[in-house]
Amino acid sequence: MPGKIRTAVTVDLDRPAEEQPYLHNRWHPDVPFCGTIEDGETVKIECVDWTGGQIQNNDSADDVLTVDLSKIHYLSGPFEIKGAEPGDVLCVEIHDVQPFEDHPWGFTGVFHKDNGGGFLDEIYPHAAKAIWDFEGIHCTSRHIPGVKFAGLIHPGILGCAPSPEILAEWNRREAELIQTTTLTRTVANPPLELNVHAGSADAAAAAKVAKEGARTIPGRPEHGGNCDIKNLSRGSKVYLPVHVKGAKFSVGDLHFSQGDGEISFCGAIEMAGIITVNCRVIKGGQAQMGMVNGCSPIYIPGPVQPQFGPGRMIFFEGFSVDEHGKQHYLDATIAYRQSCLRVIEYLKRYGYNDYQIYLLLSCAPVEGHIAGIVDIPNACTTLGLPMDIFDFDIRPEAPVSKMDRGACLISVKK
Amino acid sequence: MPGKIRTAVTVDLDRPAEEQPYLHNRWHPDVPFCGTIEDGETVKIECVDWTGGQIQNNDSADDVLTVDLSKIHYLSGPFEIKGAEPGDVLCVEIHDVQPFEDHPWGFTGVFHKDNGGGFLDEIYPHAAKAIWDFEGIHCTSRHIPGVKFAGLIHPGILGCAPSPEILAEWNRREAELIQTTTLTRTVANPPLELNVHAGSADAAAAAKVAKEGARTIPGRPEHGGNCDIKNLSRGSKVYLPVHVKGAKFSVGDLHFSQGDGEISFCGAIEMAGIITVNCRVIKGGQAQMGMVNGCSPIYIPGPVQPQFGPGRMIFFEGFSVDEHGKQHYLDATIAYRQSCLRVIEYLKRYGYNDYQIYLLLSCAPVEGHIAGIVDIPNACTTLGLPMDIFDFDIRPEAPVSKMDRGACLISVKK
Amino acid sequence: MPGKIRTAVTVDLDRPAEEQPYLHNRWHPDVPFCGTIEDGETVKIECVDWTGGQIQNNDSADDVLTVDLSKIHYLSGPFEIKGAEPGDVLCVEIHDVQPFEDHPWGFTGVFHKDNGGGFLDEIYPHAAKAIWDFEGIHCTSRHIPGVKFAGLIHPGILGCAPSPEILAEWNRREAELIQTTTLTRTVANPPLELNVHAGSADAAAAAKVAKEGARTIPGRPEHGGNCDIKNLSRGSKVYLPVHVKGAKFSVGDLHFSQGDGEISFCGAIEMAGIITVNCRVIKGGQAQMGMVNGCSPIYIPGPVQPQFGPGRMIFFEGFSVDEHGKQHYLDATIAYRQSCLRVIEYLKRYGYNDYQIYLLLSCAPVEGHIAGIVDIPNACTTLGLPMDIFDFDIRPEAPVSKMDRGACLISVKK
Amino acid sequence: MPGKIRTAVTVDLDRPAEEQPYLHNRWHPDVPFCGTIEDGETVKIECVDWTGGQIQNNDSADDVLTVDLSKIHYLSGPFEIKGAEPGDVLCVEIHDVQPFEDHPWGFTGVFHKDNGGGFLDEIYPHAAKAIWDFEGIHCTSRHIPGVKFAGLIHPGILGCAPSPEILAEWNRREAELIQTTTLTRTVANPPLELNVHAGSADAAAAAKVAKEGARTIPGRPEHGGNCDIKNLSRGSKVYLPVHVKGAKFSVGDLHFSQGDGEISFCGAIEMAGIITVNCRVIKGGQAQMGMVNGCSPIYIPGPVQPQFGPGRMIFFEGFSVDEHGKQHYLDATIAYRQSCLRVIEYLKRYGYNDYQIYLLLSCAPVEGHIAGIVDIPNACTTLGLPMDIFDFDIRPEAPVSKMDRGACLISVKK
Repeated sequence: MPGKIRTAVTVDLDRPAEEQPYLHNRWHPDVPFCGTIEDGETVKIECVDWTGGQIQNNDSADDVLTVDLSKIHYLSGPFEIKGAEPGDVLCVEIHDVQPFEDHPWGFTGVFHKDNGGGFLDEIYPHAAKAIWDFEGIHCTSRHIPGVKFAGLIHPGILGCAPSPEILAEWNRREAELIQTTTLTRTVANPPLELNVHAGSADAAAAAKVAKEGARTIPGRPEHGGNCDIKNLSRGSKVYLPVHVKGAKFSVGDLHFSQGDGEISFCGAIEMAGIITVNCRVIKGGQAQMGMVNGCSPIYIPGPVQPQFGPGRMIFFEGFSVDEHGKQHYLDATIAYRQSCLRVIEYLKRYGYNDYQIYLLLSCAPVEGHIAGIVDIPNACTTLGLPMDIFDFDIRPEAPVSKMDRGACLISVKK
Repeated sequence: MPGKIRTAVTVDLDRPAEEQPYLHNRWHPDVPFCGTIEDGETVKIECVDWTGGQIQNNDSADDVLTVDLSKIHYLSGPFEIKGAEPGDVLCVEIHDVQPFEDHPWGFTGVFHKDNGGGFLDEIYPHAAKAIWDFEGIHCTSRHIPGVKFAGLIHPGILGCAPSPEILAEWNRREAELIQTTTLTRTVANPPLELNVHAGSADAAAAAKVAKEGARTIPGRPEHGGNCDIKNLSRGSKVYLPVHVKGAKFSVGDLHFSQGDGEISFCGAIEMAGIITVNCRVIKGGQAQMGMVNGCSPIYIPGPVQPQFGPGRMIFFEGFSVDEHGKQHYLDATIAYRQSCLRVIEYLKRYGYNDYQIYLLLSCAPVEGHIAGIVDIPNACTTLGLPMDIFDFDIRPEAPVSKMDRGACLISVKK
Repeated sequence: MPGKIRTAVTVDLDRPAEEQPYLHNRWHPDVPFCGTIEDGETVKIECVDWTGGQIQNNDSADDVLTVDLSKIHYLSGPFEIKGAEPGDVLCVEIHDVQPFEDHPWGFTGVFHKDNGGGFLDEIYPHAAKAIWDFEGIHCTSRHIPGVKFAGLIHPGILGCAPSPEILAEWNRREAELIQTTTLTRTVANPPLELNVHAGSADAAAAAKVAKEGARTIPGRPEHGGNCDIKNLSRGSKVYLPVHVKGAKFSVGDLHFSQGDGEISFCGAIEMAGIITVNCRVIKGGQAQMGMVNGCSPIYIPGPVQPQFGPGRMIFFEGFSVDEHGKQHYLDATIAYRQSCLRVIEYLKRYGYNDYQIYLLLSCAPVEGHIAGIVDIPNACTTLGLPMDIFDFDIRPEAPVSKMDRGACLISVKK
Repeated sequence: MPGKIRTAVTVDLDRPAEEQPYLHNRWHPDVPFCGTIEDGETVKIECVDWTGGQIQNNDSADDVLTVDLSKIHYLSGPFEIKGAEPGDVLCVEIHDVQPFEDHPWGFTGVFHKDNGGGFLDEIYPHAAKAIWDFEGIHCTSRHIPGVKFAGLIHPGILGCAPSPEILAEWNRREAELIQTTTLTRTVANPPLELNVHAGSADAAAAAKVAKEGARTIPGRPEHGGNCDIKNLSRGSKVYLPVHVKGAKFSVGDLHFSQGDGEISFCGAIEMAGIITVNCRVIKGGQAQMGMVNGCSPIYIPGPVQPQFGPGRMIFFEGFSVDEHGKQHYLDATIAYRQSCLRVIEYLKRYGYNDYQIYLLLSCAPVEGHIAGIVDIPNACTTLGLPMDIFDFDIRPEAPVSKMDRGACLISVKK
């Protein structure tokens, strides 16, 4: 007879994340198992927030400005999934995600251009922050008044450990990008020994993880990882390729809500909390599901994601002509940035400042679509903004009144 | 008392498009008005298909292989919208789009790599075609059996004429791209005198249009144009910036259905048909709606787009590591290509060939999302495939049986 | 190769319905076939409006006041479905329903209490009418300004002919009700020879049909008939039990839109038009689908019904205490009447008169739910009103301004 | 700065409900306040299950057979809402409903015909039970295998206390029904002194409550109460009329899920748990919202109710001809019973027994619609069954295999 669901990992929010052995912050096959989940079992897994508690519920963005990005993404795991072997698929059904009852809040941040940055950092270089308060399914922010919405709650990171071969390939190709890029900004992060947390690894293993372990920022095709898919919410099923014996499944970076793109980088409503998952092994699943050429995960959304009705979304078109008037070739990234900038112009008319909107676009359940990707030279994207998250009427036809919408927290580098 | 809706333009499908004076195939402010629509009026506008009838309902893809891309996008218009002036917004409400009753079919094509190409042309260089038969809201194809879906019917192209200044800017920036690109493929099409159709322009005006007129392939931020947004369907309202007196509104390139991205370029289910629109001028609308920095259109979807339920879509993740294992920097275009390739692998297991799936992905109502755009170096996209368009069970858990799924039409260049 | 869809019946709107031999207005197994549809064939079927043209597009409700209810429901059919036999199920897929292009209008009526009546006739005894104009998927009425919505277009009537045994049972049980009722109003209509239309029947058969033929007003469990299900719209599939050889399938009473309950009786937006259906015989389908104890049809809705979003519907509770304060026992009919009356009070505040709202509730896509049916003595129903059909804000929190909302047409009996 | 949400009432599941002074089981204006909620405050309120713990998580239905129905509906409250007065409206926004973490289960019961009964008790007279286990948003039952669904979690009961005048009217009209009914079954429950729980009332007040207090089974138009509306789920806003100073708001009878009609009476998945609500007073709201003639509540659903997609529901038609072939006059209650019986026939083919389906129909999120209510003599209802709650294919076209589906618990009266 089923009873209370087992909690597979308990975290301590009052203790430094780096001291908790069931957490880790690198992808590496040698991070030891922190526990075992039976094939078919449902468990609860507690998670710290992605900064490991660096950001406070206060009214200053200084903590965002000075965040230490070598100390992030402390994932819960890795778990041994009984019976899982390379070639299998781990089907993870997300039964629920919840904040801790006594931590009913989260944060959205804009990192400084020189310390993390974000999708619009060339235009908005400063650090900014908004705190969100949770009331059941809803959230509001004293830093972005006039807005309330139901969270599309989900884990930002979910995946199984890479095999040594896959890890080597990650390191190879990202190093190549770093070496060959002509951009003057950070384009990828190589392995970094500083502040590595290899879980309960002994010294030798920890040194190996420190030297080779893949950073957690990017999602990667072979396992998913930090895919930041907002619709991986309650009720979703995700099919993860298994690359090592026992799967070494890890999860973390819980989000109360996020918009498509998570544009400010620290853009979701980040929180500590609890995820309830069922883990089931599909033997030989990779071949069965046609997972070749990189094996990327697939998923099926759950039934309870917030519904607005098609007529309650305003979509903003964007094309691959950048804000300086330069034409790019079928560049959906540029096009989506234009869609974002259009929304900022649209919402500024109501009295919000740019950073408030930048934060809001990052965390509210906005829809980012690739509309046309073949009409050379312009890619076209659309960004859908739900009208009903505002407590005033934002329809294009409605009269606009510029009001005092307060301010989010901004910290300028000295 | 309202009566039968006026038809503002009637086309003749049996006569060459270039002989019909209410059609045109360039964007230029000097293409003369082909008629007038009152502010607030609802009209029907007939449209030829985007190739002007070059593609036949037969069982060969030779017509796709040899399509003349200088003879495309014959738009209906431009219409004078009474009272519209630069700075205004033209609100177009799409009351309906329908195929002609005696032409209940359309086509989806893959162009040859050297004659148009498409999103996956480096992998699939040949020309291909599928014919779709319409039965009310549904369509099926004898070339892709086992599939039926409700069309998300819409116009691919919709927009007002550019001002001379905007046109000059288009020509400047696209020429710059052509001159500076390091790619070895066609990245944009400059003005071309061959086969220009300037509507009812006199010789002098026609010569000017031929010399300066912007090609119709790309959508452009200042007016929308060939935005190929699949959700601009029945019941949608689109807000188009007006740049010349009388607006010079044109429409065409009707699609019975399309997937996000329209990946095979001739990827929608292309058709001739009739669009019913209401045109309303919003005076000073651009300033009122915050349409600065490029003025791109915004739109609100209609209430009747096909609904599948969230649990009936399979999403395929894609990351900006290309099919050769090369790492790209936050490139959503590359990532979306990977999502597409994943679906092809997935569906091949059932017996379809690659070109059938390439065509299907282009025209079925698949959802393309930008999931994460900030986790350097990987952009993450997702492509959602509705399960219920198939007459067999494609859930990941369902057993796979490879069957004879026939073939689409393929023409190999000699 | 498929081509243009065959039209199985063409009607003439300028000729009396009773003179057109492919129409009929009684359910009887002896009405002769008017044509044949192959198993698996898709056809278009033209239909007159349910009053056979008695109601005009004008500004008087006199025609509604004096409507002759013995001359209604001229159905198109019956069709022979090749291969269908008793015990089979006829699967009808509704590919489309459209008004005639040159009749882009319909009507909603309230019948006089003594000539048809309706759900609220004890409170609203007079005749009333509103004319609706169609623009593609949308409709508006000059008699109920401030309202626009997408039609949930469907056939009111759809069914196969009864067997002689089933017909006899209908006549028996309805006669029993007429004989035993204690109500002082018409509770059912027995066979009536006046104005019977037996299609192309010869004199003998016509006399038999006249004497025994079941009236078309009620839907009936054994075949569906006038079920008036608003969601049987484009893309739906309905599974109809077959009771006679060849099925004798008939269809008619097309509605541009209807609310749950069709409360004013002539409550849908009634129209003449064309339905496109695919007919497929499922051999032995009744046993296979568990269709025992009355065999009632089942159906699956289509994907394109109008979507408003859950947060855009206001639901009004109703309980089985009538408007005189009398308590009834678990009576969902009474409860639903109370839900209707609540909406009338709610909407009157904006300036509409009672008859306008009564008409609107009958034809707009309102949702009528059975909420609780066991909490003795009160049944609870809810009626959901979509907010977005109004061009003003009807949310409970929004300020109310009573405006001039014009008037519908009302005719008082002299 | 907001913090942890205050819990306004804490219940003790290990102590008899009748001993807990912040609970009560009658509607009466003299039940004393159990606490205060500020206007605009958000609180958590704990609730016992509706039987006050009489039903166990075991494998016998004996507790359902012998349930004491005088000891039910122990509501949490009544709360004083600061500032609320008669004529106001209390807007309650439901931020969340959750089971207790250490009680992750609920039950659905069929009461014996002579002890409570239910909608189908003439056909299914015995007591039955199924236990449901909760895993996050999902539930499953060992007694109804093959089924899993997301709960449409909600409170069954929610309302403000009646004024003395309203209470007198309730007692008058229900007594009249009891006295005048010709039915041979219990049609309503008059005040009952046995097992009354008047909260913290002193002896005199308790005696008054015992004598006059309205039973909690029926919802009532003047305040809502036990409306059992399944869609009053997370994110909903309900507008409750206030009849006494301070509102005296009570809540209870939490349901993990319920189908429209809650047909087996103990038909929802009943549970103990916690509801999070925001309470806001709208001064003069009853007049402002047109709440006359009984003042029934209105509500707006939340955005996260489970979505299946229209094409994934099978609807079963029902008409007001009862299972004995008797014709009733526009009786939606009879019609809905027929819809229910049709589903039972349909699902029995897969191996379920009648009681399993009766239980399932009561608690799964089935949709009950009033389709036609005017086509004399037949009312038509439809009952929509979501296909995706089954782990096998129940589409009408799919092959049927009768399997061993286990059994629910049944207790036969000795």
